[in-house]
Amino acid sequence: MLSKEVVELSKQHSIIRDIFEYGMKRAKEVGAENVFDFSIGNPSVPAPKEIDETALRLLKTADPVDIHGYTSNAGVLEVRENIAKSLNKRFDTNYTAANIFMTIGAAAALGICFKTLVDGPEDEVITFAPHFPEYAVYAQGAGCRLKVISADTRAFQINFEELEETISEHTKAILINSPNNPSGVVYSRETIEKLAALLEKKQKEYGHSIYIISDEPYREIAYDGFEVPYVPHFYNNTLVAYSFSKSLSLPGERIGYIVAPNEAEDFEQLLPAFIASARLLSYVCVPTLYQKVVGECVDLTSDLSIYQKNKDLFYNALVDMGYECVEPGGAFYLFPKALEEDANAFCEKAKEYDLLIVPGDSFGCPGYVRISYCVPTERIEKALPLFKKLIDDYRK
Amino acid sequence: MLSKEVVELSKQHSIIRDIFEYGMKRAKEVGAENVFDFSIGNPSVPAPKEIDETALRLLKTADPVDIHGYTSNAGVLEVRENIAKSLNKRFDTNYTAANIFMTIGAAAALGICFKTLVDGPEDEVITFAPHFPEYAVYAQGAGCRLKVISADTRAFQINFEELEETISEHTKAILINSPNNPSGVVYSRETIEKLAALLEKKQKEYGHSIYIISDEPYREIAYDGFEVPYVPHFYNNTLVAYSFSKSLSLPGERIGYIVAPNEAEDFEQLLPAFIASARLLSYVCVPTLYQKVVGECVDLTSDLSIYQKNKDLFYNALVDMGYECVEPGGAFYLFPKALEEDANAFCEKAKEYDLLIVPGDSFGCPGYVRISYCVPTERIEKALPLFKKLIDDYRK
Repeated sequence: MLSKEVVELSKQHSIIRDIFEYGMKRAKEVGAENVFDFSIGNPSVPAPKEIDETALRLLKTADPVDIHGYTSNAGVLEVRENIAKSLNKRFDTNYTAANIFMTIGAAAALGICFKTLVDGPEDEVITFAPHFPEYAVYAQGAGCRLKVISADTRAFQINFEELEETISEHTKAILINSPNNPSGVVYSRETIEKLAALLEKKQKEYGHSIYIISDEPYREIAYDGFEVPYVPHFYNNTLVAYSFSKSLSLPGERIGYIVAPNEAEDFEQLLPAFIASARLLSYVCVPTLYQKVVGECVDLTSDLSIYQKNKDLFYNALVDMGYECVEPGGAFYLFPKALEEDANAFCEKAKEYDLLIVPGDSFGCPGYVRISYCVPTERIEKALPLFKKLIDDYRK
Repeated sequence: MLSKEVVELSKQHSIIRDIFEYGMKRAKEVGAENVFDFSIGNPSVPAPKEIDETALRLLKTADPVDIHGYTSNAGVLEVRENIAKSLNKRFDTNYTAANIFMTIGAAAALGICFKTLVDGPEDEVITFAPHFPEYAVYAQGAGCRLKVISADTRAFQINFEELEETISEHTKAILINSPNNPSGVVYSRETIEKLAALLEKKQKEYGHSIYIISDEPYREIAYDGFEVPYVPHFYNNTLVAYSFSKSLSLPGERIGYIVAPNEAEDFEQLLPAFIASARLLSYVCVPTLYQKVVGECVDLTSDLSIYQKNKDLFYNALVDMGYECVEPGGAFYLFPKALEEDANAFCEKAKEYDLLIVPGDSFGCPGYVRISYCVPTERIEKALPLFKKLIDDYRK
């Protein structure tokens, strides 16, 4: 007698989780040092030392009731002010606390944006393959449809032809994710400009706003030679969903925010609407202590240099071996083409070498695989000869 | 062009928040010591010292990536085991981690229970006036209707006649909250037995399960002479929603859980369904550090004795003055009858004495007022002569 929708969802297998669990089991059989789990996208570097130092200081000096007390729905004013100031310095904006709404991570930021923008099952949010699989679940939770534009497998930018055909009067938002999970690709300035121009046209055509929701948990992990354009500079109706999970290596503490620029058409209504949406999702406030800790550390990041090092090593080596792969501009994923048509079969083959990687089918992009390189560099060094053997196998 | 439902909700005023903000403004005019804000239900005692000691120890000794890393959807295994053991000791149950699902506070526990049990707008959850106002918002968010049974103003137990008339084939759950916000009343063993018997009958009549959702954030704040019955002992299809907000004075850290007993009809499906519901609400995991901290402190509470002291002082004094009030068995609220028919007008009158209290209308119970006494005892001592003047005014 439980909810049919919920029971149905509970039966869907997460392939990433299956691979992760296989890896744990396999490690017991052959030793953890011989299993190369590139399936999970968790930060592998600790938070900067200032994070825990700030936590320790606040626990010792702040009012003991206040430091664990409720905060207002939108977040602690000083935290929102600090985030606004930090963004102003970096992006030459004029934000104040009124532009920042604190959320329980980027997942909540997306759920709240969806809930705020969509009105019923006819409404649509459009995103692009390859994409983070949970987008579909958050859209379902907000009661709307997620439409997925097929991948531009040439450059992993945007398939504009299909996008233009797909946008309809029911389209309420376009969800982008750059640097991208799973492709690692950064959308170029040209891509963002083209997207903005198309949406301006479509807004006029349908006579209502179409928002860009820019999901940016990987913004700070961008590589030499790549620029991550700041989307609100290109398009007024942009909501930025951000998380400190990756930049400060705090995924478990669930601290994120939404930016709502003054230029957005519904700006005056947005913050109260976010509060209402958060209440509908049963949120009360963002965890207090680490919200305040993050608020004092907004200009810091973890030591992210390992991801650049891993990317250079891993990407160059795979391409040299003959793997076909787009160059990642950020995040911590490679997304090469599988060496046979069925990426699932390819991942099974890789498993024979204890290389654990994820079929692109999970991300709406069959024929490709995701390799997470948020691991110690030695793991990659040790795995490279196995990737060589794997490709040699296919060449026999 | 925002969601109509969300914009509509965002316009609804929170009277409690209005009163709170009036109090802040008034404090600037006449001094904080002359404003008696009994409007807000926040713990007034700090967390036990072991809480922050445990946090400090974990920050110094645990793996720095792990301590802020993602946890599994259902929560950290050891934390769930510790909670199960603690409940087993107290309530003579046989729980394991499989019976415990960690949530981002009791609000999330309720949202997840609703989402798990209801299937569409025809489905109903029934609760009892007076009730926490956000129940209606969480039910709305889960896409179902909240039906409210009018208050039993004699004893603030359950109006069984109206309940029996209201339960229908669409009823999926009965939501109870004891000790109660705002009445402070504890449901007696007799009430729970009668409720269980009625629901057993109705389950048979309609041929499907009807759950009790027992919202218990105030369980540990129960007064001398009052017993809070453990509902799963009386009725198999019970889900307990718990929060450490009040017991450990950690409302901002958002740590709670759901208990799903083995005896529940859908037990095998419940935990996977909770995970699916949590994903639909855009939850990822419960904040890691304080989840682990709480897991090591499950048998502790803050020093809750002040609430007993405040209750004895405040309740006895008001009754002696002539106020009509049910005796609270727990929580930290008094719910006396207003001295005129319109509780809003009565609260305005109280404001003239700088006594800030909340009309019962907000809780679905017009004609009564909520007085929160989670304040330093001296505040109550100083306010009592003003409550005396207030009642004398009405006697003139």
